[in-house]
Amino acid sequence: MFLSINSNKCDTAHASAGETRLTSKLIYAIFLLTSCPEHGAVLIQETKTKSVAPDKGLSRVKERRIPSLQSATDPSIYVAEELQLVEQTLLRAIRSREQTLTDIAAHLIEGGGKRVRPMVTLLAFFGLGGKATQDIVDIATAIELIHTATLLHDDIIDGAETRRGKVSAYKKYGLKSTLVAGDFLFIKAFEFAGKFDDTVVEWTADACALLTEGETLQGHFNRNRAVTLDNYLEIVTRKTASLFHTGAKVGAYLAGTSSTLIEEAGRYGLNMGIAFQMVDDILDVTGHPDLLGKPIGIDLRDGNPSLPIILAVNAGESAVCEAFEEPEPSEQQIAGALTAIKSSAVIADAKQLAKQYASDALRSIKKLPPSLYRNGLKTLVQLIVDRDF
Amino acid sequence: MFLSINSNKCDTAHASAGETRLTSKLIYAIFLLTSCPEHGAVLIQETKTKSVAPDKGLSRVKERRIPSLQSATDPSIYVAEELQLVEQTLLRAIRSREQTLTDIAAHLIEGGGKRVRPMVTLLAFFGLGGKATQDIVDIATAIELIHTATLLHDDIIDGAETRRGKVSAYKKYGLKSTLVAGDFLFIKAFEFAGKFDDTVVEWTADACALLTEGETLQGHFNRNRAVTLDNYLEIVTRKTASLFHTGAKVGAYLAGTSSTLIEEAGRYGLNMGIAFQMVDDILDVTGHPDLLGKPIGIDLRDGNPSLPIILAVNAGESAVCEAFEEPEPSEQQIAGALTAIKSSAVIADAKQLAKQYASDALRSIKKLPPSLYRNGLKTLVQLIVDRDF
Repeated sequence: MFLSINSNKCDTAHASAGETRLTSKLIYAIFLLTSCPEHGAVLIQETKTKSVAPDKGLSRVKERRIPSLQSATDPSIYVAEELQLVEQTLLRAIRSREQTLTDIAAHLIEGGGKRVRPMVTLLAFFGLGGKATQDIVDIATAIELIHTATLLHDDIIDGAETRRGKVSAYKKYGLKSTLVAGDFLFIKAFEFAGKFDDTVVEWTADACALLTEGETLQGHFNRNRAVTLDNYLEIVTRKTASLFHTGAKVGAYLAGTSSTLIEEAGRYGLNMGIAFQMVDDILDVTGHPDLLGKPIGIDLRDGNPSLPIILAVNAGESAVCEAFEEPEPSEQQIAGALTAIKSSAVIADAKQLAKQYASDALRSIKKLPPSLYRNGLKTLVQLIVDRDF
Repeated sequence: MFLSINSNKCDTAHASAGETRLTSKLIYAIFLLTSCPEHGAVLIQETKTKSVAPDKGLSRVKERRIPSLQSATDPSIYVAEELQLVEQTLLRAIRSREQTLTDIAAHLIEGGGKRVRPMVTLLAFFGLGGKATQDIVDIATAIELIHTATLLHDDIIDGAETRRGKVSAYKKYGLKSTLVAGDFLFIKAFEFAGKFDDTVVEWTADACALLTEGETLQGHFNRNRAVTLDNYLEIVTRKTASLFHTGAKVGAYLAGTSSTLIEEAGRYGLNMGIAFQMVDDILDVTGHPDLLGKPIGIDLRDGNPSLPIILAVNAGESAVCEAFEEPEPSEQQIAGALTAIKSSAVIADAKQLAKQYASDALRSIKKLPPSLYRNGLKTLVQLIVDRDF
């Protein structure tokens, strides 16, 4: 990410080179110094509550210390404490009676990840007046667990060799164990999300169902030239945007805000989620493998209907059409198709589309009350569109 | 099953030849006539409740008509109405925006299945004084959905060709779609179970986690001669008995009974679940493929440490040791190993063990208050031990 804190000890908090790219280490160090419990800032209480609903049975915490870093370009800084708790909760959640399951989950969870979904959930919650901490940390953790479970299963489906810059769990641990580890993470997510009220359970379950339905719809259009931009939007709405949409909505709902603002937060998540996937697709053509932590051209290799591929296919780019339809395209075919995409108007068009959705997300933000967290949500969209990893 | 009712229309209720083996069609016809709404019996109300806890917020139904068929040998008859509702709820649960997901789930769900887990849950609930219906139907449905999800994923793990007498979903629809359909069913189960209170959510999630941990432990002992009877008991406790254990416990809990009786119901489920798996393992050696709906010798083929295999390996049966350790045993090796098991004391010993666990389950039943449902639980254990399919 922007910032990923993997330890609860101030002096060992660290972020990888890639993760600090978008922020100033200095700003982060100052923030850490002012917010670390050992230096006098808040200690987040953890309590177990039953059937959590907005403004009901929530665990209260001491006054949050809000970092006065209005110039910060890293939106994670506004919810750094909670993201740290999400990290700790993730590590607790993946403890299993079977070390293999913990190892596989840790392989992916400790391997980085942007934690964008928890961040959106947390920023929406605090941005809409949420006060309690442990519950929002739990639901943010559940959402990240669901995301991680789908990554494990996606790697099986795509036969992925690498993920987050290292060998994929699927390649390292094999199909059987990775499949079961994915199930394990889904179950752990359920354990966290299941304590909330029916609305949260329903929204979260529906987001999960949409993920599987998006994966299935994508499967229908695998190496299929008939795929349209509308099909693509339906796939990404389900497969990527649904967790952002739900995260933001649940955050707003648990903050106890109005239904209008809950919907607006959801719309923010939805549109930024679509923009996020569009940029992901673009980077699979224009990105650098070292920065991405994986090779480029994966969508062409796997026959996934990504945005640049669809735009190029619809424009009749023959090299792209051939590589996309070919069951096992050669490296030469893939390289040729990538060059064809890059030398066409496709990337500019795709970026324009991503910007449109980012701009829709920003429109929703304007309807939220002004706060540092709202600034964070705004910055996040801008970073997502401008990122190169 | 004993009885599987796939329709809510009285005149189309049916059971396959295999399913009616243990009961009298005549008795069932009389029962159906007296319990069908069109003939004046109860109509179960459906209401949506929030955060369901025992004796709190439960939907009430009209007086249940309890069949006065004390001589019935089919335990499903005591909860036939609710099992019918479970069938209907299962079919509603698997409706997806993607027909493929519904088709895969329906392939397995409509393909029969004994519905023993919902039956245990329902019998424990009513046997311990439970009155409301929709909530217990929902949690029984969730438990069957979890079971079905694991079957889909198990078939991928084992590369199973057949399931419930027909081609497996994995073989028919392929790995990718079957994997996603399994996830979809897990999610749907979560949707049903998530509306209950923290205790039910925790128990259900823990049972699911145990399932994955049982699968993982079994994987460690795949084709591994070092496996002991203790390892086996740990595997089946997690992999098979956990859902029976939780089903019975949740049923008792939702009935609002004492913690002592909840534990006793749980112990019943645990021990009958272990006996159930032991008999399953025995039938993989001694059963008839037509009755089982699948070939025999699967455990040897897949290298699964089943009870007869473990007993034979521990007794130094060389033909079994060789076939078990061989990565791809020939049909001849499997046939030789099956003959060796059958001509040894292994099957008698395995049956003895299954009877011990069945007897432990019966001991728990004695502590439950007398009722027709308690009779049902008792008969169920006897049928499980004596079954040949």
